[in-house]
Amino acid sequence: MPTEITVNGRTYRRPTAPTVIVCVDGCEQDYINLAVQAGCAPFFASLRERGAVLSADCVVPTFTNPNNLSIVTGAPPAVHGICGNFFLDPESGKEVLMNDARYLRAPTILAAAAEAGMLVAVVTAKDKLRSLLGHQLKGICFSAEKADQATIAENGIDDVLNKVGMPLPSVYSADLSEFVFAAGVALLEDVRPDLMYLSTTDYVQHKHAPGTPGANAFYAMMDRYLQRLDALGAVIGITADHGMNAKTDALGQPNIVYLQEQLDARFGAEATRVLLPITDPYVVHHGALGSYATVYLRSHGLAQHTVHDFIASIPGVELVLAKADAARRFELPPDRIGDLVVITERLTVVGTAPAGHDLTGLTVPLRSHGGLSEQKVPLLFNRRVDAAPDRRLRNFDIFQLAMN
Amino acid sequence: MPTEITVNGRTYRRPTAPTVIVCVDGCEQDYINLAVQAGCAPFFASLRERGAVLSADCVVPTFTNPNNLSIVTGAPPAVHGICGNFFLDPESGKEVLMNDARYLRAPTILAAAAEAGMLVAVVTAKDKLRSLLGHQLKGICFSAEKADQATIAENGIDDVLNKVGMPLPSVYSADLSEFVFAAGVALLEDVRPDLMYLSTTDYVQHKHAPGTPGANAFYAMMDRYLQRLDALGAVIGITADHGMNAKTDALGQPNIVYLQEQLDARFGAEATRVLLPITDPYVVHHGALGSYATVYLRSHGLAQHTVHDFIASIPGVELVLAKADAARRFELPPDRIGDLVVITERLTVVGTAPAGHDLTGLTVPLRSHGGLSEQKVPLLFNRRVDAAPDRRLRNFDIFQLAMN
Repeated sequence: MPTEITVNGRTYRRPTAPTVIVCVDGCEQDYINLAVQAGCAPFFASLRERGAVLSADCVVPTFTNPNNLSIVTGAPPAVHGICGNFFLDPESGKEVLMNDARYLRAPTILAAAAEAGMLVAVVTAKDKLRSLLGHQLKGICFSAEKADQATIAENGIDDVLNKVGMPLPSVYSADLSEFVFAAGVALLEDVRPDLMYLSTTDYVQHKHAPGTPGANAFYAMMDRYLQRLDALGAVIGITADHGMNAKTDALGQPNIVYLQEQLDARFGAEATRVLLPITDPYVVHHGALGSYATVYLRSHGLAQHTVHDFIASIPGVELVLAKADAARRFELPPDRIGDLVVITERLTVVGTAPAGHDLTGLTVPLRSHGGLSEQKVPLLFNRRVDAAPDRRLRNFDIFQLAMN
Repeated sequence: MPTEITVNGRTYRRPTAPTVIVCVDGCEQDYINLAVQAGCAPFFASLRERGAVLSADCVVPTFTNPNNLSIVTGAPPAVHGICGNFFLDPESGKEVLMNDARYLRAPTILAAAAEAGMLVAVVTAKDKLRSLLGHQLKGICFSAEKADQATIAENGIDDVLNKVGMPLPSVYSADLSEFVFAAGVALLEDVRPDLMYLSTTDYVQHKHAPGTPGANAFYAMMDRYLQRLDALGAVIGITADHGMNAKTDALGQPNIVYLQEQLDARFGAEATRVLLPITDPYVVHHGALGSYATVYLRSHGLAQHTVHDFIASIPGVELVLAKADAARRFELPPDRIGDLVVITERLTVVGTAPAGHDLTGLTVPLRSHGGLSEQKVPLLFNRRVDAAPDRRLRNFDIFQLAMN
């Protein structure tokens, strides 16, 4: 068997110990910090002495799919093609869901490792990520959400609920992520994969601020499973797809820029099209409201710089970039973003129009992500790693740092 | 008696009810939001229905003195001159403390109101603000820190501990701010000032994240006193001098750009001088570490754009502006800032060199302020106010909104 693999121009060594990479969805660094302060995260607390505690920049838009795919390909969206949940098909004018693996433009480290003879396992919280992460993977790959439906043929494993020893969790629950960790421990005990990728959901982080009881309980749960993975001899790397911030005023009302509404009022109803790539089949906990949007100009008479300047003048907007500038700065595929990319300030989200967002599911004040304010994420290991101090680390360096 | 006063070009009506303006030091909006969510801030919770809940931009640098002076003058630092705790005297090359009223270049609303015959009272937490806020004020003005030393001649009041009914608080305590509120209630009951300004300290916010027990207890305390001021018939306006953010990695280690050290290594030991205007006689809780610095070029051979580009390339630096640009964008007095203004990212602070910062007082992970990330603050009233929806509100609009 080969001792190393090369994927998207980067080389990864075959691990000598089982290697577990964890993507904690929405893990603003203060969640870990304040759980440690509260005394409920002894594994995390131990990493300063025995491991490596680093920070990294995730991919903008600071959404789940672009970052999970960057992590498992070791490359930015310009390479792998997944820059959100949706893009606008220029021919049909329709919003196209990018949850399907045919939109993926690069091989994953996971599939390459399996191809090279390693035993690879992937467990995601939501099923939406499974087909992308499991693309061409000859190994184990299933979601907590549909753990009851896993089959050998489709997922490389069956009887998952029994093997994990937990009932099927609700898709909107902290249990969905706990199931991911419990499955990781069960797999490590049972089949001891060479390489494992565990990816949680940010249901808790959308609802609970760092250091509050709901958040601390979630990180305490995670800490207990990480201790078990550690005790089983795994090399563990932990990062996040994005951070998380409050997006409200002092009394919990969301700060929303209704961009389509404002553009329609200024330039006419059909002149522009605002696309929110955070939109997905699971919007209850954030109402499809994040801090990133992309805008397509549809009226040929419309000067791009006029729209650019108008959007930049809207209070709450932090940054507007033309397609080429956004593609360069954030390493995005230009054919899958609009003519303009819009990022709102830390405490503000961007919506289309009030009718486009169902806020009735927001039972607690909105916390969300998508912008530059959620780019800094943890990059933690339970052993020393070799990272030059002046290097700009990315969350998608995690496989290389853990394996080399 | 005149029915209105004009100060720094803005007009304020004589209040018909006692008007209390509160500056809650370091009040990131989520402190209030999460205290309301936890059920311990019923007064704040009531404001959505019966008052006005707005957000405002504070002054950059997002420090205490520039913002308190902006609030009481209704004007930015370009007008009142106070843009930090220190500036560099170009002739002596010495750092000059700006806590003294002779550095104030504009009259205060407080002094003008007193001059017009209103009874005015000012209570600050720390004594450092007292002489600035009380400049030319014929009224009551004292600090909680030195409440035991107040005299009729100096402070317009004596026997303060007895009148307030609390012992002298420690300067590093939540009690210091509680004393300010207790004094406000006692003054409203005893002498019923027409206009009162209460300014707390951010000791609690530097140590406790929003929604955590220490923060919620502090806001619950504040809420009880605000209820009493409200029940006594006061018009209340509440804002902050600045927000507050974690400045650490996932395990609580501060993210520090040691700017003087880096500039010395790159350009030589005497070429530049980094000044941190957050530095003051009370640095225990933040180690003089904030997200704003100003840089003076001292070597005549040094090209400013070279230094500018070097600083902008340092990871963690968000923005570098030349003096004129900074003065224009942030409305600062150009003669009291350096050749460059440096702002670091939300989770990063700027220091001089390791030897210049005593971090032994940081008993909990660093939380601080100073940058753009701490510019958004609450602007709350216990009655409706007249603010156009598209207007960019500032914290220093609060007197006008409350009085008109």
